[in-house]
Order: sequence, then C-alpha cells, then structure tokens
Amino acid sequence: MAHTVNRYKADIREFHFVLFEQFKIQELFGKAPFDDWSEEVAVAIIDEVHRFGTEVLGPLNAVGDEQGCRLENGQVLTPDGFKEAWQKMYEAGFKSLSISPEFGGQGAPTGLSAITTELSSGPNTAFEMYPGLTIGAAELIEAFGTEEQREHYCGRMFGGTWGGTMCLTEAQAGSDVGEASTTAVKNADGSYAIKGSKIFISGGDQDLTENIIHMVLARTPGAPKGTKGLSLFIVPKHRTDAEGNVTGPNDVSVSAIEHKMGINGSSTCQLAFGDNDACIGYLLGTEETRGMRQMFQMMNYARVGVGLQGLAVASTAYLNALEYAKERKQGPSVRNFKSADAPRVPIIEHPDVRRMLLDMKARVEGIRALIAKGASHLDRANSLKHTGGSESEISYHEGQLELMTPLIKAYSSDQAFRICETAIQVHGGAGYTRDFPVEQYCRDSKIFSIYEGTNHIQALDLVARKLNLGGGQYAMALLQDIGKFVEKHQASEVFRKSIGKLSEAHGAVSSTAMQFMTWFQAGEMERVPLVANRFLKMMSEMVIGWLLLDAAMIACERQEALDQEHPDWSFYEGKKHAARYFALNVLPEVVASAETIKLGDRSPLDIPDAAFATV
Amino acid sequence: MAHTVNRYKADIREFHFVLFEQFKIQELFGKAPFDDWSEEVAVAIIDEVHRFGTEVLGPLNAVGDEQGCRLENGQVLTPDGFKEAWQKMYEAGFKSLSISPEFGGQGAPTGLSAITTELSSGPNTAFEMYPGLTIGAAELIEAFGTEEQREHYCGRMFGGTWGGTMCLTEAQAGSDVGEASTTAVKNADGSYAIKGSKIFISGGDQDLTENIIHMVLARTPGAPKGTKGLSLFIVPKHRTDAEGNVTGPNDVSVSAIEHKMGINGSSTCQLAFGDNDACIGYLLGTEETRGMRQMFQMMNYARVGVGLQGLAVASTAYLNALEYAKERKQGPSVRNFKSADAPRVPIIEHPDVRRMLLDMKARVEGIRALIAKGASHLDRANSLKHTGGSESEISYHEGQLELMTPLIKAYSSDQAFRICETAIQVHGGAGYTRDFPVEQYCRDSKIFSIYEGTNHIQALDLVARKLNLGGGQYAMALLQDIGKFVEKHQASEVFRKSIGKLSEAHGAVSSTAMQFMTWFQAGEMERVPLVANRFLKMMSEMVIGWLLLDAAMIACERQEALDQEHPDWSFYEGKKHAARYFALNVLPEVVASAETIKLGDRSPLDIPDAAFATV
Repeated sequence: MAHTVNRYKADIREFHFVLFEQFKIQELFGKAPFDDWSEEVAVAIIDEVHRFGTEVLGPLNAVGDEQGCRLENGQVLTPDGFKEAWQKMYEAGFKSLSISPEFGGQGAPTGLSAITTELSSGPNTAFEMYPGLTIGAAELIEAFGTEEQREHYCGRMFGGTWGGTMCLTEAQAGSDVGEASTTAVKNADGSYAIKGSKIFISGGDQDLTENIIHMVLARTPGAPKGTKGLSLFIVPKHRTDAEGNVTGPNDVSVSAIEHKMGINGSSTCQLAFGDNDACIGYLLGTEETRGMRQMFQMMNYARVGVGLQGLAVASTAYLNALEYAKERKQGPSVRNFKSADAPRVPIIEHPDVRRMLLDMKARVEGIRALIAKGASHLDRANSLKHTGGSESEISYHEGQLELMTPLIKAYSSDQAFRICETAIQVHGGAGYTRDFPVEQYCRDSKIFSIYEGTNHIQALDLVARKLNLGGGQYAMALLQDIGKFVEKHQASEVFRKSIGKLSEAHGAVSSTAMQFMTWFQAGEMERVPLVANRFLKMMSEMVIGWLLLDAAMIACERQEALDQEHPDWSFYEGKKHAARYFALNVLPEVVASAETIKLGDRSPLDIPDAAFATV
Repeated sequence: MAHTVNRYKADIREFHFVLFEQFKIQELFGKAPFDDWSEEVAVAIIDEVHRFGTEVLGPLNAVGDEQGCRLENGQVLTPDGFKEAWQKMYEAGFKSLSISPEFGGQGAPTGLSAITTELSSGPNTAFEMYPGLTIGAAELIEAFGTEEQREHYCGRMFGGTWGGTMCLTEAQAGSDVGEASTTAVKNADGSYAIKGSKIFISGGDQDLTENIIHMVLARTPGAPKGTKGLSLFIVPKHRTDAEGNVTGPNDVSVSAIEHKMGINGSSTCQLAFGDNDACIGYLLGTEETRGMRQMFQMMNYARVGVGLQGLAVASTAYLNALEYAKERKQGPSVRNFKSADAPRVPIIEHPDVRRMLLDMKARVEGIRALIAKGASHLDRANSLKHTGGSESEISYHEGQLELMTPLIKAYSSDQAFRICETAIQVHGGAGYTRDFPVEQYCRDSKIFSIYEGTNHIQALDLVARKLNLGGGQYAMALLQDIGKFVEKHQASEVFRKSIGKLSEAHGAVSSTAMQFMTWFQAGEMERVPLVANRFLKMMSEMVIGWLLLDAAMIACERQEALDQEHPDWSFYEGKKHAARYFALNVLPEVVASAETIKLGDRSPLDIPDAAFATV
C-alpha cells in the first residue's frame, strides 16, 4: 500500500541564506516593481508554502506514484487526492505568487518564486507539473495573446479554473520540433481547423479543471518547412462561450497515456486533434509563423523550471539520506573496527557515508545557488528597468541569465539522478524498497534530463549559441566575475588551496572555450557536439565551485560575530565544508576534462556504424 | 499491459572473441579437468543458451516486472510463466553446466559458465536469481557438508527439484553481519532448533520448487560475539524423509515480501524461523562457528555473479540503444544543421549519440573482459592443479582472481546503472516509457551496487585486504603485467597516445596504493575508506583500459589477414575504437583521481554532524 505520510524534507535556513545573505534579494524590495515586498513577507510566504507542501502535497507523492493516472472512457483520472489538493492550492493563493497584479497575482520576484516552486515540487514533483505547465501556457497567452485572448484565458488559467499544456512533440518530431506535421487551416471566421497528433503531453488530460487550454504548435498551409513555419495555437479541450461557460467538446481526444518509469502522478498523453475535423484553434496573437519564437521565450522559463525540479527532488533525497544516516546503526566506528565488542554507531559516523552526504550536500546547495543566481539576474534586470538602470547593466544581467539557463537545466537534472542514486546507496537495501522515498525520487528524476530539450540540446545551446551571445561578452563577463573573486580571496588562509582549484578550473574553462572557436573557424563542426556535454559540466562546476566558495566567505564573516553555541555557527560551518569539499574533490575534474578535450579524440566520429556490434 | 516479446539482445561474436581470442580458453581443453571440452562444444552451448534465453526467459522479463511476486496465504506466487520456464530450463539441462560430474553436471570451465550466466541473466535478471542462488546454496553444501548432507541435498538442488537461499541479513544486521541474532540450539538428536528473523532473502519463498533449502547464519549458545560466533545451518522449508519426500512443514514462514524499485520478478522475503519453536536446522558440516568462513567462500562466487548481472543488463541496454539509434530518425546531419530541407538521418549519425554508444560499448566490453579475466585465472589455476603446475603459477592465478573480485562486483554494478541511464538517454522520451526495456534495466540494476556486500565493502576489501594479500605480491604482479604490456606496445604507431594514457594510469594507481601504505603506517585509518571507492574505480579502469588495448592489439593482428569486406573486419575495427575511446576519454580520469586523492581533503571527516543541515 502506498504511504500517505509526508516524506518531504527541506532546510528552510538554507533558503534564507541563499535569498538574503548570498543574493541579497532585499536590496530590490521597496522599489519598483517590488515596492510592496519586504523580508518579513517573503519569509512568511516561504513558511506557508513549506507547510502546504508537507501537509497537503507530500502525503500524496507515494499515492500518485503507486496509482498513476488512468484513462477511462476517454477521460484521464488523476490519483486519489489530487483534485482536492488542486482546489486547496488555488484557494490558498500559492499559485498567484509570481503572477502579475493585472491577473490578481502578487508579482513576486523570481528569486522568491523559485524557492516556492522548489518547496512545492519537492513534496510531489508529479503533481506540481499540472500547475507549472498551466502557468507556462497562460504566460504565453499573457505575453503574446491579443487583448481578447488575455482576457478570456489568463485569469481563468492563473486562477486554476482551467488547466494548460504545451503541445510540441509528435511521434516523428521530438528533439527535431521542426518536423511537426500538425496542420492549422484558417476558417472563414478567423479561427483555425487543427488536425494532427501530439505525444508526451504532460497534463494533456486530467480531472482537475473545468477545461484545458492546449498551446499547440502547428503548420499553416504554405508555411516554410522546419521550425520557421510553425505557429502557436490556443486549442481548448472544450469550447466555451464568451463568459467562459463550456458549450461543448472541441474534438480533442486522448488516444493513450504513457506508462512510465516515474512521475506517475503526472499524466503523459497522446492527444488527437481534429480526428472528426471539428477541432478549432485560435492563433496566438495576430501573426502566423511566430510559434517557435513565442515558444522559446517560454521554454527558457520552463528549462529553469526543470532545473528546479531536479534541485527539489535531489534536496529531499539528500535530507532523507541524512536522516536515515543519523538513525540507522550499523557496525563499529572505523577506529574500533577490529573489536566485536565495540558499540554500534549511527552510520553517519562511517567515513564513506559522510563522504556521500557531503557530496550530496555540496551539489544540492551548489545547484540551489546556481538557480538563485539565475533568478537574481532576472530580478535585477527587471528592477533596473523600472528604476532607470543603464542599458549595459540590464544587458549584463540578462546575458548572465541566458548563460546560466542551459547550466541550470542540464547540470541540475543530470546531478539530480546521481544524487538520488547516492541517497539510495546511503539507505542500503532499504533504499531499494518502496518503504523509503528515495527510489521514487530516483525514478521521478530520470525524465528531467530528457524533456524541455534534452541535456545535449542544452549543451549545444551553450556552446553554439550562449557562449557567443553579444559577441561573447556575457561569457567574458562571467569569467571576469570569477577572476575577480579569485584575486580578492586568493590570499585567504583557510581557503587558499580551494581558491587555487577554482582558479585552475577557470583557466580550464577559458581555454576550452577558446578551443571551440578554433574548431568553429576550422569548419570542424562535428567536434563540438562530441564534447559539448562535457563542457557544460565543466562550466557548471566552475560556477558552482565559485558560488559555494562565495557562500563560504560569507559564512566566515558571519561566524566572526557568533559563538560556537549559536545554531547558525554549525550552519555556516556546513557552508565552509561543502565549498572545500567541492573545490578539492570536484573541481579537479574540470581541469582533467579540459585536458581530455585537448586530446581531441575522434573515435566516436571515426568508428564505422557496422563496428558497434555484429547484431 | 506487459510485453511478452523478447527484448534481449546479445552479440555472440563478442563472446567468441573474449573466450577464444583474448583469453584462449581452448588452451585448457582436452586436458584435466576439462578433458571432454572442445571449442565446438563450447560454441554449441553458447548458441543453445542464447536461444533459450531469447525464446523462454526474455519474453517473461516485462511480465515479471509488471506482475511482481505476490504473497497469498503465506505462499509466494511468482509471475505468470516463471514456473514453466523453470521446468524447461532444468529439462534442457542448462543449469548443470558448471556443476561437478559427481552430481550429474558437466564441470564446465568458469569462463564458459560465466558467458552462459550472462546469456540467461540478460534476458531476465530477476528470474535468473532463483537458479543462481539455488546453485550457490548447493555449492555450499557440496563444499562443506557431510557426505550425508551432500547426498541428500546437492543432487536435488542442482537438478532444480529443490530451491535454495542464503539467509544472512537481519533487520539490525545488514553490512554488519556479525550482529545477527538468530539462534541455533542443539537438540538431543544432533539437529538444531532455529529461531530468528531474516530479511531481504532473495527467493526466500517461491512456487517453482517442491522444497526450499535455506542456508541460515545463526549463533549457538555461548558462541563469541560478532562474525566469529556464527555457524551455518541447513534449514529446509519443508521437512523431508530420507528419500526426499516432504513430510510436513518446518516452521519457516514468510512474514512479508518487499516492494522494490526493480527485479520485481524475484521475490525478496522476510522469513521467520521457529515462530512456533518447531524449526529444525542442520549444522553445515560438523563444526560450529565456521559459518562466516564457509559463507565467504561462496560469497566470492556470488560477487562475481553480481558483476555478471551488471554486465548482462548493461550489455542488452547498450544493444537496445544501438538498435534504436539505427532506426529512429531525427534531425539533419550536423554538417547540414542549418538547412530545413536536409534529409532527416538516423540518430546514430549524430555525434553525441555516437559518443554515448561508443562509451557504452567500451564499458560493456571492458567489463566483460574483466570478468573473463577473473574466470580465466580460476580455470587456469584449476587446470594447473590437475596437470602438475607449480605452486607459484597456481598462486599467481588465484591471487589475480582475488584481486579482480571486488573490481568485478563493484565496478560492473556501478557502471551498469550508468550504462542503463545512457541507454535511456539515447532513447529520449521513449526510453522513459515502459514501451522500451531500458527503464526496467535501469531499475533492475540499481540493487547490484548494494547486495552481496555494498560497493563500499568491496572497496574496503580491495584496499584493506586484497592489495596486501600475499605481502602485496598479487597487486605487484598485476602492475607488472600491465607494465610489460606498456613496454611491449609503447612504440605502436596507431596506439601510441592510448598506451601513453595507460602508462599514466598505471603510475597513478601505483602511487595511490603507496599512499595507502603511508596512511596505514601513520595510523590515519579513517582516510582510507574516504577514498576507497575512488581507488576501486581507478584500478578497475586501469585494468579495463589495459584489457581493451590488449583486445585492440589482437584485432590489429587479425585484421592483417582480412580484407575490409569480411564481416570480422568491422568487428575488429570496433575493438580498436572502443580501446582508443576508453584510453583517451576515461583513463585521464584515473590520473586526475590520483591527484585528487593526493590533495588529502578531510572535509567529510571534519564536518560536524550538526553542520550537514539544520533539520
């Protein structure tokens, strides 16, 4: 039987640190567009969302996993309790946090809404996908829709009355979105007749909302091939009148739902549009063939969202492993390993368990800092725009967010799976059973490296696009920021060795980036994708190594004012050890990776297809 | 619905290469104890087992995963079809291959039986655990039992009439086996009254056999604490008369079965012995407190068995990904990436997909060579014993097997999970669904790093025991073997760079091993477990890098006699690329790891417990 208790764990102190001590979000409060925000309000919201997550969403996580979604008579039924949770969530108003005041939202800074997303995704990452995609779809309409569209859809979607989805993928068009063959033919009344099949649609059907608004990529007659010919359409599941009352079906049907490794509580649907030639869609905005551009704007947010899913699941996996390690007794201390009479100790005392825990901690907190950095750049750009900041300042912040986005999506999702694996290992055989939440976390997390653009697509986005954005100035600015940090702290007594490793990683990333230029110039295009994933990892680890050391420096400063009995003293001590661990155990891999890339091995390109296997 | 088609894939050419070209098992044929063996017979057996695996076991893999095992009225029911498969398997005689002729077996060399184990574990790793553990239990009785015990149990177990299990773990005694509290009190008739609870017992109950023979670790009154006080007992599920007829129950009951992440077709049971004080067991052999020593002998074989499970699952995951990559079309070639009109290509043409495929191939074939090397040492030691080989030769081979065992168990199982992850990634979103077998492979494989001694226990076994075995002579001999290979081939035109990387890895492993000595001597015990896992990985990758290059040298030689149209030409080309890829992309990590270990970071030891988190 599925557990109906909350297993989600979060370290709230850590959120306060990232938000207020490291990225200083309070500097933006009290002025436009965050005039009404204060530290007190932010802290109170974090607490409320945390309580809601642990009380309402957490207990449904194993239930959702075990029951999964069912397709009955063409209707998807979500697991027990999901509908009630949805209602409670919207009644409590948690989902209006980041929504603009125009639609009844609170216009929260992204730094804060990222944390609340972690706090609702961690307890139940499958459930959180329904509101997450709904908001994403509504934001598309908010950004690109006509006034009428905004008025008709946004409020109802932001308020949770209607759900929303993103319909990109087709059977033959996965990573290759431009192959989409769903068609949209204009009707006399200006609407479009939609026809085609989409697959892997998260929340493609559910029983949580009155209606579902699908954002569908489709091709109009005569539009160019590839992504350039795609337009975005608003395609409701049910047709409605001007007041939003459902008037009848819209020829959107669920052909099947997927049975998956994880995120079973989230329905993954195959949708058929216009099987009976009666599916009506509305062009988003007023111009055709803008679909990919519109979708991409949203995609960036969605990619950060996937990074947050990875972080959320990895973090609770870590904290569950930590709790288990403190409670589970097994074996004597390594110092008494030869004595049968030595007392059994909690496994947290065993060096390898401590190593696994610190490894998870450093990665989780590093990824959280990476995402917080991305969010902070967005908020600062936003703030500067409202307070007359300079173009160059705004562009700096926007550029850094662009640069961080592929790192956030890919590094967080890749690491989440590994962190969950480590959490299972800490639990031993118990971790392989459904009695503990970590195996579900592990299964749930595997999709993160695939959807919203596979991690290789993120790596290509990084090396082929983001590095060169603005003539390479954003990448340069990042390297300079780290260079300045190294210079400032290289004399640090306690962290000399660690700063040295950061400096080496910095050199390694810089020289590999230069190497890419050489390859591009020499027309050796195919070498780049071969090492792009490796480079994304290098760059992510350099940034995370830096952010962890930055946190450690703050921790050192704060400790000066505390005695060792103060509870914060240990917290800061943790920051210092995480930074040192990462610098001395992970950053050396960045340097080794640069050297490996320099070796220029072409084996994967050169091996003949027939040489992979004789079958 | 579960698929009832075979998804298992194996490259039989690869088995012939490893067996006959790289490890030359035919050198042992025709003389004791392998007098009756020939290359033809071995090849025929491989084909037969392969056919049986794909026809009978493969189609039950998804069924077993989906249905799992059920506990009904105290009896475990295995998934549909398992019982029939069990009968067919024993009728076909596949399980008698490695059994000694005394019990109707064929006494096959381990090199061959390892391959047949891969061929039956790959199609259905959960199913294969039932016969695997039965054989392990029977071999314990064969090795340590009295004449009477051997006669009563071995034939019936080897023949598949009775099943067998290993009962070590208790709730409070996992890795810490010595905490076992199950008791055994001698009865007047020489039998023992067994009382206690065991958990995580694979095949602890099933409906495949008439009876189940549990090998139970228990403590006799007055025996010392810890592992030294444990004895092994033969505890049948049902009591039998001298003819083996079941005469009644033996007070062994199933308290529960586990619900797991994977291997759902294999029952994992909690067993209660003697709840009604009516459980009778028989001391294995004649002497008490020999249990751990006896169990350990078997454990070594079981550990290689887990390595084989990892290999088997990883190999079919790789070949499934390869097939998918050849069939799935997506996107244009990287050379035409800007043209919307460029033809879509099978994804195997994309550099990152080729990289993933070659990475999987190199690791799978490297692990297979590692296991074949271990098996070859055992077979050669065995052959030498029968043909008057010298003590030192025999000891060399036995020492190498000892050294390889922890590498085989831990490296194969760790990598299997990662290879399965990569196989999912090659499949994209499809790989996350149950429509393809790779997500099951991934879930199944996670347990391999945990059971039969966690991978950290393997790492400790390596650094604290195996490195120093025989005064360190076996480790030294291994390093010398690799050193000679480097010397012989360092002038190789084609592989100069790769051999250079092997040489560097060799230096890195040697110097790290020396570092351990220093730490042991300085009493800095706790530093060793901190880096033991890393060292095991280094050493495994050095050995695998060597074995892949060794295979590449053989491939170069063989190619000289072939033209490029010969199907073997591509096969050998694959060997060369796999070796080069591994040397230039993986071996550099070995060197980096040695440098990281040298940094001597103690953060995981130094961090206060309270600093891990504030919750």
